[in-house]
Amino acid sequence: MTNVIVTDIARADASTIDALAVHGVATVHEAMGRVGLVGPSVHPVQQGARIAGSAVTVLCWPGDNLMIHAAVEQCRPGDVLVVTTTSPSLDGSFGELFATALTYRGVRGIVTTGGVRDVVDLREMGFAAWAGAQNAQGTVKATAGSVNVPVVVGGAIIRPGDVVVADDDGVLCVPRAEAASALAAAEARVAKEAGAREAYRTGDLSLDRNDLRGVLADLGVQYVSQSEWHDDGR
Amino acid sequence: MTNVIVTDIARADASTIDALAVHGVATVHEAMGRVGLVGPSVHPVQQGARIAGSAVTVLCWPGDNLMIHAAVEQCRPGDVLVVTTTSPSLDGSFGELFATALTYRGVRGIVTTGGVRDVVDLREMGFAAWAGAQNAQGTVKATAGSVNVPVVVGGAIIRPGDVVVADDDGVLCVPRAEAASALAAAEARVAKEAGAREAYRTGDLSLDRNDLRGVLADLGVQYVSQSEWHDDGR
Amino acid sequence: MTNVIVTDIARADASTIDALAVHGVATVHEAMGRVGLVGPSVHPVQQGARIAGSAVTVLCWPGDNLMIHAAVEQCRPGDVLVVTTTSPSLDGSFGELFATALTYRGVRGIVTTGGVRDVVDLREMGFAAWAGAQNAQGTVKATAGSVNVPVVVGGAIIRPGDVVVADDDGVLCVPRAEAASALAAAEARVAKEAGAREAYRTGDLSLDRNDLRGVLADLGVQYVSQSEWHDDGR
Amino acid sequence: MTNVIVTDIARADASTIDALAVHGVATVHEAMGRVGLVGPSVHPVQQGARIAGSAVTVLCWPGDNLMIHAAVEQCRPGDVLVVTTTSPSLDGSFGELFATALTYRGVRGIVTTGGVRDVVDLREMGFAAWAGAQNAQGTVKATAGSVNVPVVVGGAIIRPGDVVVADDDGVLCVPRAEAASALAAAEARVAKEAGAREAYRTGDLSLDRNDLRGVLADLGVQYVSQSEWHDDGR
Amino acid sequence: MTNVIVTDIARADASTIDALAVHGVATVHEAMGRVGLVGPSVHPVQQGARIAGSAVTVLCWPGDNLMIHAAVEQCRPGDVLVVTTTSPSLDGSFGELFATALTYRGVRGIVTTGGVRDVVDLREMGFAAWAGAQNAQGTVKATAGSVNVPVVVGGAIIRPGDVVVADDDGVLCVPRAEAASALAAAEARVAKEAGAREAYRTGDLSLDRNDLRGVLADLGVQYVSQSEWHDDGR
Amino acid sequence: MTNVIVTDIARADASTIDALAVHGVATVHEAMGRVGLVGPSVHPVQQGARIAGSAVTVLCWPGDNLMIHAAVEQCRPGDVLVVTTTSPSLDGSFGELFATALTYRGVRGIVTTGGVRDVVDLREMGFAAWAGAQNAQGTVKATAGSVNVPVVVGGAIIRPGDVVVADDDGVLCVPRAEAASALAAAEARVAKEAGAREAYRTGDLSLDRNDLRGVLADLGVQYVSQSEWHDDGR
Repeated sequence: MTNVIVTDIARADASTIDALAVHGVATVHEAMGRVGLVGPSVHPVQQGARIAGSAVTVLCWPGDNLMIHAAVEQCRPGDVLVVTTTSPSLDGSFGELFATALTYRGVRGIVTTGGVRDVVDLREMGFAAWAGAQNAQGTVKATAGSVNVPVVVGGAIIRPGDVVVADDDGVLCVPRAEAASALAAAEARVAKEAGAREAYRTGDLSLDRNDLRGVLADLGVQYVSQSEWHDDGR
Repeated sequence: MTNVIVTDIARADASTIDALAVHGVATVHEAMGRVGLVGPSVHPVQQGARIAGSAVTVLCWPGDNLMIHAAVEQCRPGDVLVVTTTSPSLDGSFGELFATALTYRGVRGIVTTGGVRDVVDLREMGFAAWAGAQNAQGTVKATAGSVNVPVVVGGAIIRPGDVVVADDDGVLCVPRAEAASALAAAEARVAKEAGAREAYRTGDLSLDRNDLRGVLADLGVQYVSQSEWHDDGR
Repeated sequence: MTNVIVTDIARADASTIDALAVHGVATVHEAMGRVGLVGPSVHPVQQGARIAGSAVTVLCWPGDNLMIHAAVEQCRPGDVLVVTTTSPSLDGSFGELFATALTYRGVRGIVTTGGVRDVVDLREMGFAAWAGAQNAQGTVKATAGSVNVPVVVGGAIIRPGDVVVADDDGVLCVPRAEAASALAAAEARVAKEAGAREAYRTGDLSLDRNDLRGVLADLGVQYVSQSEWHDDGR
Repeated sequence: MTNVIVTDIARADASTIDALAVHGVATVHEAMGRVGLVGPSVHPVQQGARIAGSAVTVLCWPGDNLMIHAAVEQCRPGDVLVVTTTSPSLDGSFGELFATALTYRGVRGIVTTGGVRDVVDLREMGFAAWAGAQNAQGTVKATAGSVNVPVVVGGAIIRPGDVVVADDDGVLCVPRAEAASALAAAEARVAKEAGAREAYRTGDLSLDRNDLRGVLADLGVQYVSQSEWHDDGR
Repeated sequence: MTNVIVTDIARADASTIDALAVHGVATVHEAMGRVGLVGPSVHPVQQGARIAGSAVTVLCWPGDNLMIHAAVEQCRPGDVLVVTTTSPSLDGSFGELFATALTYRGVRGIVTTGGVRDVVDLREMGFAAWAGAQNAQGTVKATAGSVNVPVVVGGAIIRPGDVVVADDDGVLCVPRAEAASALAAAEARVAKEAGAREAYRTGDLSLDRNDLRGVLADLGVQYVSQSEWHDDGR
Repeated sequence: MTNVIVTDIARADASTIDALAVHGVATVHEAMGRVGLVGPSVHPVQQGARIAGSAVTVLCWPGDNLMIHAAVEQCRPGDVLVVTTTSPSLDGSFGELFATALTYRGVRGIVTTGGVRDVVDLREMGFAAWAGAQNAQGTVKATAGSVNVPVVVGGAIIRPGDVVVADDDGVLCVPRAEAASALAAAEARVAKEAGAREAYRTGDLSLDRNDLRGVLADLGVQYVSQSEWHDDGR
């Protein structure tokens, strides 16, 4: 494998990206058909942040952040840095100095399977982070990797230029080519959920609204009062 | 195994439940003889919430929340929804729409070995949650399970109608039949601890207060000054 | 092995300890050559606390906090209690009553591979804690252990009197004999980082500042535009 | 909670137990409706053993095997010792001396969420073990627990006298009152599977045999050749 | 996302695949530049098996093996079945009946992030398996997924038709288009290693053979005798 | 921290080391007072091996095996190589070529918190290994570390020249200065256990032999027949 730094990556439409951020991870994920999640091993370092941006991907060697240095130069306003390692590592390869450099470039946050440090500073700067750990463990700059190649991040494949959405529910990858359709699906879902929310607020049951009583019956689920059921043995 | 939805479950006395909430998990757990904890794999999604309520239990298939839909109807004011899966799963089977429906019914919170999503909304609504993960991963409604059967939640057995106490220290199950005695024991413990607290605040040692110096001596623990001990070799 | 309680331990210079607290874990760790971290399995129970103090070490049997009772007496103003178990255990061996007693003695916080409970109280009291879990699980006082012997805490060896630094980035052990040199190295690092920060804030790249372009070239990393790279196959 | 040693427990019919052992964990579990499994955190210490027996349950304090000593006396020929701890512990609380005593009493094996040691000896003796770990870590005999009370073992509730089936696929609990019906269901399943096995051996497809083509169609799953599918974008 | 079953997938050259099996995972992985490993969360269920084959990929819902039923039909002689789930699950979705059907079709083994059962039978049949767990936990056939789409398996992306190599060192994905070049690189590496092996067998040092003494010196690593080093303090 | 390769380390008496190997991990650990175990995260790669030897310790950077190359030269007949990394890593930094070189030097095996590869070859060569994983993941030779410095391995501190004992029950560190006393204690324990074994073989109970009935009574453990206990409620 040749290690490369891929430049001039294509990105999704900026207004589509911004609109995806409004809807958030759970809604877009559900609207897309429940695919693309990184999963809970990468968690938010702060509370309440919700971002979307174009992925600049970084593949590092464990214990080494050389390629993050190279990746900074490839970032543009509206990007999200996405970092992983060739084998699992929670070392703190990212901290406040990187966040300072990325803030200058208009980057919206970082998603990493590794660790972040200077967490207090990141929160004060308002630089959003999702990480595998908060970990001061320092790294070296000795081994090659790549920038802007497809990477596996948790359970998701993220390609450079894909749209990354992140909030307190996790991190989602929306493939670049599907950004517009994902947005449309999310908007449709929001409209549908608004009706459901109003109904539930006043006492309706999803059992009825979603016609689930028949599903339960078809699956053989039986209703029984506790007094009768206890007679049954256990 | 027949899948059932058990209705009309018995619950503990409401004033007893509310009094248990005041004392919190650590005190009641200790007072009961150190049993009944779910354990730290289920953690609070917010800070500072402390609730107690009657368990409505839900046993779901992994990746499937059909039975939560069925469980909502069985809930009454003062209940706590307790969800687990037949095999381990952190999927986000519970979110803001369920919380809306449960708020209408006076439910006090959710405890789940699985994941919750719409975490920002849950916090804003003040709907308390203890979960195995914050996870947007969506679920289907295709496979049967049961409502209000005994379930294993972490290291605890929770039966429908048991009292669930939850705060930042974890989640505790107080068997329904033991709720009153647990409350009495907790009150006795609180009284005893008040004296200890006052004593420690002014410099007393638990070594003396609990007569532990003799225990140490009986176990052969020796006091030695650092200068002497270093001579000993390592 | 004889179980001992070692008294009259030597501690580092108080002003050095206080100065290390100002710099925090990530900076001191980096300055020392990236050694001595406990690692992310022990995490902060609160946000934003940053302390340094002299380690009073406690080695307990799992499920047993007898030796913490013994350790309280050995603590002096400016100390940090460091607790671990002879085999892994997340039981909640430390809570608010201990914190009350330690506050009287001027102790600055606790670091434990085990669990802490009464978390709400600890936060209200401002008693800083780093722990393996928040866990109400209670413990007994039946089995011997030691106080002020060297202990393994995560990936670090901590000896009594070593300086423990802890914040949101983790927990670091600075050997007592190296406290002064670690402080000097940290101060040098802070000065160096100030220049870097200012440069990055206005758009400089660490690639240039650290002369990393040559490193990349030596390692065979190639720059390629996305359009060309895609031709390559995958 | 009072700690008790329950004597004279009821057991299932011996011939039923022996017949369940023949069928093994996967078959009986499936026949019972896919419930009762301990799960993969407890794994076989040897290869190829397959046993069934009546559970004598032991609830120990972590790091303590006092109650195993008490449990030996309660064992009878055909029993299986089932050990767990009040909070998670992998300490090696069981070894060759216990196996020697249990062999005298006709016990068929041990299932423990903790650790076992003297593993070479156990294998040589032919004493079957399923454990959370192979671990030499020794334990004390200082803290109370119970014998023959219901315990949570992994994801299963095991009551004294329940039938425990164990092999290389894991450990299963068959409630005592359901042993006969579980055996009948297992026999029916074996008969059904024999036909399926013969059909698959000669090329039949489960898609056809189980009428799954319609299920796939109803779920909207589409067949597409690779050449066409690639046109679709990704 | 539309769920699909992709048919008529392209495969690598059969003789290339067979030759990759001879070299094994560690050698091919190293020769390819240290990429493509699934990682140790998927481990061998037997000892000593070494296979290579064309991947037929299966993406299942957790707790559901419907798509494995669909995948059997897509398999040809020389294939390896590769199974994962949309979110993590160790359920035993694969057992002896599937192995029987796949043996008829000439399939060489299974790689799954989930669980396998009937492990004794699989070993007797000589059907090679690499899995996340040995687990009897049964599954349903109720939810859609896909066959022969790209999947994330541990840390690797596996596409249908890629060459999967598996042995006691793990599971490796060789992209279909790189199979021939990977084989050539592996052969070159084997030749080179033969010389090294012979040299080491008679006492040569890799320090000399690989010119690493200069690397150590450049990195500042110092040689010191133990007597001198101890004077240094710790 | 200066990185060093410490030469000419002191070792324990060879006959003492060999005698410790005969007794094995569980016996020596127990005889030493239940300290010094690495713990179950490092497990045997083969079955039935039992070795003891002098530790040559290696501290590597994650993903990097440069220092193992340096350590080979420091090994003598009767040594055991002990490898760990500055932060957790399961990469396969050790394989058959290293084993070949170490066999020439009379080294008895390897203990590593990382991964080993070429596992089939290691077993065929009879080169004993205890590791955190079987993992083909390759490493680089780019970053400094140390040889023959004290290291933390799991829960144990291992210093160069300490005696490492390893078998199917785990890995134990016997400090060099305590090797003779540990051997004496192990021999005493073996003699004592022989009597116990004979007694248990013919039906004696450890309850009686160890005078534990009084311990149970003092702790308040009560004997109750199952029929009476069920009346009690649950």
